[in-house]
Amino acid sequence: MLTKKTQISILKTPTQEAWIEQAINNLDTILLDHSHCERKAASVALNLMFRYSSNTMLVRKLTAIAQEELEHFEQVNQWLEKKKIPLGPLSSPPYGAKLKAIISTQEPQRCLDSLVVAALIEARSHERLGLLGKYCPDENLAKFYRSLMASEARHYGIYWVLADYYFDREKVQKRLEELSIIESEILAILHPEPRIHS
Amino acid sequence: MLTKKTQISILKTPTQEAWIEQAINNLDTILLDHSHCERKAASVALNLMFRYSSNTMLVRKLTAIAQEELEHFEQVNQWLEKKKIPLGPLSSPPYGAKLKAIISTQEPQRCLDSLVVAALIEARSHERLGLLGKYCPDENLAKFYRSLMASEARHYGIYWVLADYYFDREKVQKRLEELSIIESEILAILHPEPRIHS
Repeated sequence: MLTKKTQISILKTPTQEAWIEQAINNLDTILLDHSHCERKAASVALNLMFRYSSNTMLVRKLTAIAQEELEHFEQVNQWLEKKKIPLGPLSSPPYGAKLKAIISTQEPQRCLDSLVVAALIEARSHERLGLLGKYCPDENLAKFYRSLMASEARHYGIYWVLADYYFDREKVQKRLEELSIIESEILAILHPEPRIHS
Repeated sequence: MLTKKTQISILKTPTQEAWIEQAINNLDTILLDHSHCERKAASVALNLMFRYSSNTMLVRKLTAIAQEELEHFEQVNQWLEKKKIPLGPLSSPPYGAKLKAIISTQEPQRCLDSLVVAALIEARSHERLGLLGKYCPDENLAKFYRSLMASEARHYGIYWVLADYYFDREKVQKRLEELSIIESEILAILHPEPRIHS
């Protein structure tokens, strides 16, 4: 199994080999989508900082995440420039919208769900960047993917720590268990368009 | 006239003395509002980067702005912590919503209007932080306000440069003239709640 070694503990199911193949065959599109993912990740952090603006710990931790996502966004865009891939819009895979749809609309459940979903997305991103870092045939680009991994791992840790700080551990673990199953189910059928979260 | 020296060239009318008085009498609220302004400014930049994601120059320049706004957000939050002012939500003055309402809904006018409005907001912020840097009785805090001014000035310059890069200069100047009149009109009546843009 290609993916065994890169399995991330909070993810229910590791990425299937079909995704690796799709990604490696479409590295330019994956790079452009990655740029969008970094910008979206910064937006997610900013929106949570706005919604829970009284929660000092959350605001402080998410400021650091947003800053790092913007740094990565810039770095990915430098790669796009180097490879002469023009910036531009790209349709999103159903992954984000499907995860968003399962977030409760009622507080405080909404806050817990948002943090758990963000942790899962960061964990999946970390896993998939790791796979790109391992299988990308362009050694420099592979190195770049590996260089991002440490902070991506930190990010899902931070979202988990925040959930654990504001909610009972038992409740967090129960919800993480439920949502991680759904997260893996969403990815069970490979989205036909190559994306970080296809 | 208190404000004469701090008049910013793209603003139609300088800030009235009543605002300075209101702000100096409510420094804690102004500081909290300032934190929200920095976060909102980062969000504005991110949203424009999303909407005009094919425009490399815009994306590059606004990434730098968003990063700086987040740094300032962090710095303002450190001041809040130092002064034991708890983080928390704060109602917005009508300024932002009124300016947003005059942005065209049709492209490419929407893009031009968005850039011009952002330039005006940054210019007004720069002017008012300058006034706080001048009249704030806490010399350390005044120094902090002055330290932010150089980058705030750069920000309105960048929005202007972007407008000028993507649109005819004559068109930009005409729209800036129109919108700067409205911007000053909005602020002509002091909003009763102390805010950076009251």
